[in-house]
Amino acid sequence: MEKNNLDDDNSKPKHYCGIAGIYSDSLTKIPEKLFYTLFSLQHRGQESAGISYYEDGSIRTYKDLGMVPAVLSRYLEKDKQNIVSRIGIGHVKYSTKDKNKIENVQPIHAVSNKGDIAIVHNGALSNSSEVRKLVFDKGAILQSTADTEIILHLLAISEEKEFKKALFNTLNLLEGAFSLLLIKDDSLIAVRDPYGFKPLYVGKKDDMVVFASETCALDILKIFDAREVEPGEVITVDRHGMRSDFFAKSTARSCCVFELIYFGRPDSSIFGKSVHSMRKKMGEALAEDETVEADIVMAVPDSGNSSALGYAEKSGLPLEYGLSRNHYAGRSFIMPTKEQRELMVRMKLNPVKDVVKGKKIILIDDSLVRGTTARLIVKLLGEAGAKEVHLRLSSPEVKFPCYFGINIPTKEDLISNRMSPELIAQHIGASSVRFLSMEKIKKVIENADDFCAACFTGNYPFEIKEATDD
Amino acid sequence: MEKNNLDDDNSKPKHYCGIAGIYSDSLTKIPEKLFYTLFSLQHRGQESAGISYYEDGSIRTYKDLGMVPAVLSRYLEKDKQNIVSRIGIGHVKYSTKDKNKIENVQPIHAVSNKGDIAIVHNGALSNSSEVRKLVFDKGAILQSTADTEIILHLLAISEEKEFKKALFNTLNLLEGAFSLLLIKDDSLIAVRDPYGFKPLYVGKKDDMVVFASETCALDILKIFDAREVEPGEVITVDRHGMRSDFFAKSTARSCCVFELIYFGRPDSSIFGKSVHSMRKKMGEALAEDETVEADIVMAVPDSGNSSALGYAEKSGLPLEYGLSRNHYAGRSFIMPTKEQRELMVRMKLNPVKDVVKGKKIILIDDSLVRGTTARLIVKLLGEAGAKEVHLRLSSPEVKFPCYFGINIPTKEDLISNRMSPELIAQHIGASSVRFLSMEKIKKVIENADDFCAACFTGNYPFEIKEATDD
Amino acid sequence: MEKNNLDDDNSKPKHYCGIAGIYSDSLTKIPEKLFYTLFSLQHRGQESAGISYYEDGSIRTYKDLGMVPAVLSRYLEKDKQNIVSRIGIGHVKYSTKDKNKIENVQPIHAVSNKGDIAIVHNGALSNSSEVRKLVFDKGAILQSTADTEIILHLLAISEEKEFKKALFNTLNLLEGAFSLLLIKDDSLIAVRDPYGFKPLYVGKKDDMVVFASETCALDILKIFDAREVEPGEVITVDRHGMRSDFFAKSTARSCCVFELIYFGRPDSSIFGKSVHSMRKKMGEALAEDETVEADIVMAVPDSGNSSALGYAEKSGLPLEYGLSRNHYAGRSFIMPTKEQRELMVRMKLNPVKDVVKGKKIILIDDSLVRGTTARLIVKLLGEAGAKEVHLRLSSPEVKFPCYFGINIPTKEDLISNRMSPELIAQHIGASSVRFLSMEKIKKVIENADDFCAACFTGNYPFEIKEATDD
Amino acid sequence: MEKNNLDDDNSKPKHYCGIAGIYSDSLTKIPEKLFYTLFSLQHRGQESAGISYYEDGSIRTYKDLGMVPAVLSRYLEKDKQNIVSRIGIGHVKYSTKDKNKIENVQPIHAVSNKGDIAIVHNGALSNSSEVRKLVFDKGAILQSTADTEIILHLLAISEEKEFKKALFNTLNLLEGAFSLLLIKDDSLIAVRDPYGFKPLYVGKKDDMVVFASETCALDILKIFDAREVEPGEVITVDRHGMRSDFFAKSTARSCCVFELIYFGRPDSSIFGKSVHSMRKKMGEALAEDETVEADIVMAVPDSGNSSALGYAEKSGLPLEYGLSRNHYAGRSFIMPTKEQRELMVRMKLNPVKDVVKGKKIILIDDSLVRGTTARLIVKLLGEAGAKEVHLRLSSPEVKFPCYFGINIPTKEDLISNRMSPELIAQHIGASSVRFLSMEKIKKVIENADDFCAACFTGNYPFEIKEATDD
Repeated sequence: MEKNNLDDDNSKPKHYCGIAGIYSDSLTKIPEKLFYTLFSLQHRGQESAGISYYEDGSIRTYKDLGMVPAVLSRYLEKDKQNIVSRIGIGHVKYSTKDKNKIENVQPIHAVSNKGDIAIVHNGALSNSSEVRKLVFDKGAILQSTADTEIILHLLAISEEKEFKKALFNTLNLLEGAFSLLLIKDDSLIAVRDPYGFKPLYVGKKDDMVVFASETCALDILKIFDAREVEPGEVITVDRHGMRSDFFAKSTARSCCVFELIYFGRPDSSIFGKSVHSMRKKMGEALAEDETVEADIVMAVPDSGNSSALGYAEKSGLPLEYGLSRNHYAGRSFIMPTKEQRELMVRMKLNPVKDVVKGKKIILIDDSLVRGTTARLIVKLLGEAGAKEVHLRLSSPEVKFPCYFGINIPTKEDLISNRMSPELIAQHIGASSVRFLSMEKIKKVIENADDFCAACFTGNYPFEIKEATDD
Repeated sequence: MEKNNLDDDNSKPKHYCGIAGIYSDSLTKIPEKLFYTLFSLQHRGQESAGISYYEDGSIRTYKDLGMVPAVLSRYLEKDKQNIVSRIGIGHVKYSTKDKNKIENVQPIHAVSNKGDIAIVHNGALSNSSEVRKLVFDKGAILQSTADTEIILHLLAISEEKEFKKALFNTLNLLEGAFSLLLIKDDSLIAVRDPYGFKPLYVGKKDDMVVFASETCALDILKIFDAREVEPGEVITVDRHGMRSDFFAKSTARSCCVFELIYFGRPDSSIFGKSVHSMRKKMGEALAEDETVEADIVMAVPDSGNSSALGYAEKSGLPLEYGLSRNHYAGRSFIMPTKEQRELMVRMKLNPVKDVVKGKKIILIDDSLVRGTTARLIVKLLGEAGAKEVHLRLSSPEVKFPCYFGINIPTKEDLISNRMSPELIAQHIGASSVRFLSMEKIKKVIENADDFCAACFTGNYPFEIKEATDD
Repeated sequence: MEKNNLDDDNSKPKHYCGIAGIYSDSLTKIPEKLFYTLFSLQHRGQESAGISYYEDGSIRTYKDLGMVPAVLSRYLEKDKQNIVSRIGIGHVKYSTKDKNKIENVQPIHAVSNKGDIAIVHNGALSNSSEVRKLVFDKGAILQSTADTEIILHLLAISEEKEFKKALFNTLNLLEGAFSLLLIKDDSLIAVRDPYGFKPLYVGKKDDMVVFASETCALDILKIFDAREVEPGEVITVDRHGMRSDFFAKSTARSCCVFELIYFGRPDSSIFGKSVHSMRKKMGEALAEDETVEADIVMAVPDSGNSSALGYAEKSGLPLEYGLSRNHYAGRSFIMPTKEQRELMVRMKLNPVKDVVKGKKIILIDDSLVRGTTARLIVKLLGEAGAKEVHLRLSSPEVKFPCYFGINIPTKEDLISNRMSPELIAQHIGASSVRFLSMEKIKKVIENADDFCAACFTGNYPFEIKEATDD
Repeated sequence: MEKNNLDDDNSKPKHYCGIAGIYSDSLTKIPEKLFYTLFSLQHRGQESAGISYYEDGSIRTYKDLGMVPAVLSRYLEKDKQNIVSRIGIGHVKYSTKDKNKIENVQPIHAVSNKGDIAIVHNGALSNSSEVRKLVFDKGAILQSTADTEIILHLLAISEEKEFKKALFNTLNLLEGAFSLLLIKDDSLIAVRDPYGFKPLYVGKKDDMVVFASETCALDILKIFDAREVEPGEVITVDRHGMRSDFFAKSTARSCCVFELIYFGRPDSSIFGKSVHSMRKKMGEALAEDETVEADIVMAVPDSGNSSALGYAEKSGLPLEYGLSRNHYAGRSFIMPTKEQRELMVRMKLNPVKDVVKGKKIILIDDSLVRGTTARLIVKLLGEAGAKEVHLRLSSPEVKFPCYFGINIPTKEDLISNRMSPELIAQHIGASSVRFLSMEKIKKVIENADDFCAACFTGNYPFEIKEATDD
């Protein structure tokens, strides 16, 4: 009997995680502040949460399976409130397998000849097997299945005595996506891989330096003025202030386009772009090529909201709210059988009959992966009397695996590998299905060369020697 | 230390509860079906949940503090799944005081000389003290503070031997709002007070008759064709079918206008009207009298969504999504201090800076009670660079207490009793504040005489002899 | 799937409950003090616990299913520690049916025309149906299946205006066993039925008056000097001090002999007698008539401990500890199947092979009800190499139901109604089985006429008009 | 706020843990069987529990903080019941520090170049720092503070390709106490250090081979015929059967004498001796040298039970049960303040006044560490009217630290390092205090040279180069 989360509908690619870190010159309630930032990143991972903070000369780690409030609300309690610290890092995680393996929950925290280190990681290594073999051969024991643990092993086996050199050598062994935050003794270190696959922001306020995957997590601490950690950059914050180094030269950026399409919160900036505005423009771009006549435009809430707004504005068609989302649908509970996926969709989304009845509808969502949920939504709208349902996706067809931290179904499960848009329409019962073209999305993004869109194109930023399956 | 719920922001009037009931000719998974219907009514009460069902000749009741999934997900477990029944009722509840008093959680279930009866109740009696005194004098002991328990006492002390007569006599002693569902032996009985304050729908499917406060709870069981239980009507469903009686003549309807303004889910029909469409029209009506120039229209999500859409359409101003709502904000946790109300608002709502910056904004919400949250939202928008924020409420000024089941703050706490719209604007930092006029709302509703708007006007449908304080 | 408790082995009669009450002239941590006293009474009921205390002019009740630490440890927490009060009552309960019915958990607390009253009750009414009918006819609604609720109803329907008179009238309507504690406004009232079926002690310390079922619960508060509340006595403690009245004349005492045989803690005084000393003497009396030769005497721990000591001393045979009891066996968990009763016994008791091997054993236990567990214990000892096992019970054969609060299996389930001691020996695999005779137990108790031994003799203190089944 | 366990009274040395392992030729409910064996070993560690089992080609581990029923009862649930396996190991643990560090909970399970291995460990390494340094230098990262993790690291860094050789090399690097069980691929391996500090038994039944720290854990599976794993022995069980090897020659045994004195369950055999019989003989030996006159002998339950029996028998003085132990005292809850240690003792132990009053008492316990609890017990007996209390300990004075897995307070905290028996008597309020002499205990044990009694004598079996502090 497995707990299912109504949100966890498998209809979307999964992000791996969100990270945050705080350095303060003076003692402050670091764990409490991490609570707020991680809560703002909850959408990036709902399966587990954890923090490490530096207190009285050593690092303390608290982590567990569950959402941020369940795991960390102890730090809002009177007794724990008084825990003060100067340095802390935190993590929220979605895990695709070994759900119950507490060992995989981050931060990962260990002592070694390089000292007492806690680390959090957003992304995935594309040379995971290679570096895993490397540390195995050296006699490492792996207690988790996380790439993150391997990074600590590489650090520990490095023969460089100086920590910074050991770190840089280690980072140069890694290939793929890694936005990292580390506590090392009384310093906080932030790292972003040379391709900049995953976002990482840094901002300052009073005597605090704060890092977070998205700007919405800085907003909650009233830090409205932040910059990206640069690809290849290592930022160290300690008693001597904040220093920037580069462990590698970034020859080409490969920012994950899906962060803009689906992962990021609309109120965040990611890769220097407003997520909401980008999505709205994708919706506009979708409208430009429209071929069918329709009465209304509506979103699959909330993933299609911004693009539906853009589509409506551009097309001149009236926007409508024809699907109501149950606010409580994120709460997890056990579903009797897997067959009841349809019931789960019904519990989450319900048509507004008055709006839908007799209408030709342009229905906007961000992407299509398996098509299962889309079919059910089209069915719901049909029951409610919709005359036509034209599904429009504000991204191209997802056809290829991601080796950098997005969990995309196997190739065979991706509906676009099996069917043309016409066949998909038939399969899901829609009047038509249309994807935003790669050209259009490039135009929207402007600096499209700085982005990785391999899941659409199969053009990876470099040759992938191995396929990780997590 | 009290648990706070981010949703529970006190910025809105509180509804008391939602109810549902199912009668089936054949044995079916009644508790599981009640789970789905109550989950659809979760927005009507988040503090407790419970069900009663008839099994093997007696009524079983299961209820607890907590949300529907926490309390009832046991009925989705393999072991409990097999619980079948033919009759069941359920309840979700928001409780204003005695939060921990399990005795107040409904259904209330007792045996008496009238048999084994379980009851759920949406609404509040306006002659609560009077009937309480009546049963006290007869020697009743009250284990809860709920009006609902009094109804059972009245039934028990009735000298009518015949149940139907005892019930009708009892109902005629009650004054105020009461949509009721009862299990009495192997029958299910639905009652709506003669004023029809609170909604109650009935629908049929196969061999099932289902009652629910809103149609969205019938949708989940694929019942799309339902009618209202009429004011003063008593519907009895048993082995002999479904019968309708009237225990009192309904001389004047007094449907609660706030159900349309705020309580109902947009995808529901309430009092025969589509909630979303009504709200959209309220937004349109708001736009008609607009006096200021603005760049964009945006809602306080989600309470202002539908009216903002209507406003934008009518005014021709572009609709925007300038406030992002954290989907996880409904999860309850302990907040360190009450002073951190601001932090709670920030955790729930965050401006989309790109949208807001430099803009003259029409900000739409449904109603204004204390003004505390509104002030914080205006502050957030200001920080994000908004040039002007014109708050528009799609309802008139709330000035009077409700004696029929809505929990409105005391008169002194209602900001509209202390300030004019101009002063409110000043107080909350808005450029201007404007309410929808009573005349406009009447026009929108059309059959406005059938509605109670006493919280705006002070004109109660009948003289209130006493004030209940819960 | 039902939780089973290793202690809950059904091999013993069940006591119904234990009660405690505290009155203090000055404010003190009443809930915390009730925790300690109830924890000392935990052996009298492990299924639920609860307290009511008077605070700020009203009574607050907290109760739940579970053991004392699980239910009440909140009152040891820093936050709750500061809850002070002057008056409180508490209850621990074993419930035979409707285990999950929270409504049956005591204290029962209600308001009525007699004021705000909380009540706890040890015992059972033998005219339960009669008084239940009485209150039903008057229009009472019963939300629990507990006799205790009926007492509150009788109080409420009494036409006496003066509380004391109403109470006395009510008490005179009750037949059977009732040791009661009530909070009524700011007074604490203790009652014991005229037969004195169940124990109730009262002691004083500083400005506190404390009531408890057994003296061990007074010891924890360092009250070493207590007296019994007398049969028929009503003790009222309030601002004016402590007053004693008698609501009825006690014509004949009927103290429950099983309190001495099995229920009481050995370190308690009950009915003015040391429980341990009584049991030791029962063991001595058992030894007097011994007919078999044996090598060692040993107890079934811990119910046979004291009598085994007495037996060994009297007989001159060496005492041995041949069965080891797992200290953790009281923790409840789910057992896979009911068939695994044997495993449950093995988890709780294990022979000390070195002691048992090759020995002729006198095995002492307090009583025999179904014989199921005894058979398993004899089997265990056989496996460990015992040569002969002679089971000796320090009480007569249990043959009759109890109407005063002890849960004894149905007549057919009582092994002594189906078999002679010789047949029982054969049935359970023992070499012989012998019970303490009624004559002997009378001699041990000395004032045997003051005791009820109806479960052995069938001679009830008065004619029982009805049989309650709980 | 820390959870305190009434059992956890710090008045006794703490054992580190208990281990169990099962190999079955055919698939069986290994997790369920481990539940029963670990439950029988619960007295060896109450802070955490865990199991690893081999299923479908890989090892699964489930562990958590808490007692066995809390952590593992899931394996008795219907759903999990069907988990079958052929190989499993389990652990119960008492942890002296880092209580909340889930990483320290065993089994420790990791993959490395030596394969997928899970390990449990009873004992402590006396060269912990040395081997820790060794693996640190090789680049190991340590995620726990447990010695056990180091053993896995040593295995992984071993350059021997053949697993058996790598294991033997690793074991030869370890110094101190280690009874180990490992799952390695589809084999189960048991190891006992060459000194045999900690017990480990192996027994067979049908097609199962079972290992456990004490025989009581084999009894529950009806294995009554077991042998010790020999010091220095490695037993491997796999498809090819059971093989015995010796990784080192055992030159001198050093079995932990405290296992007999206090740790073991009385119904167990440990080091080939019946625990109960040994303790009884210690009590007899204590009696031989008695110098004072007394009325009764009684134990501090339950640690002094067996020796009090022996003492009484030898001395001819009557045995009595003068202290009653609350059966529910093992349940943990939060105590308001540390000052309430006295209350904790009172909640656990209560005098039987009738027995104690006016008596000269010989009070037997197993050992004296800090003297805190003893003082409180003497006080309790004094309050209950005892005339004289002569405390007798069935072990010598504890004066020295243990480097092999027993948690003994620091030297300064050991009362025998600060006071003579006469002073101790004065300090704790006893009439006299006497310890069993080293000579006597040697005589009782017979093969005393095979035992480590360094905590009494300071004579360690070999030179300890370093002191571990856990």
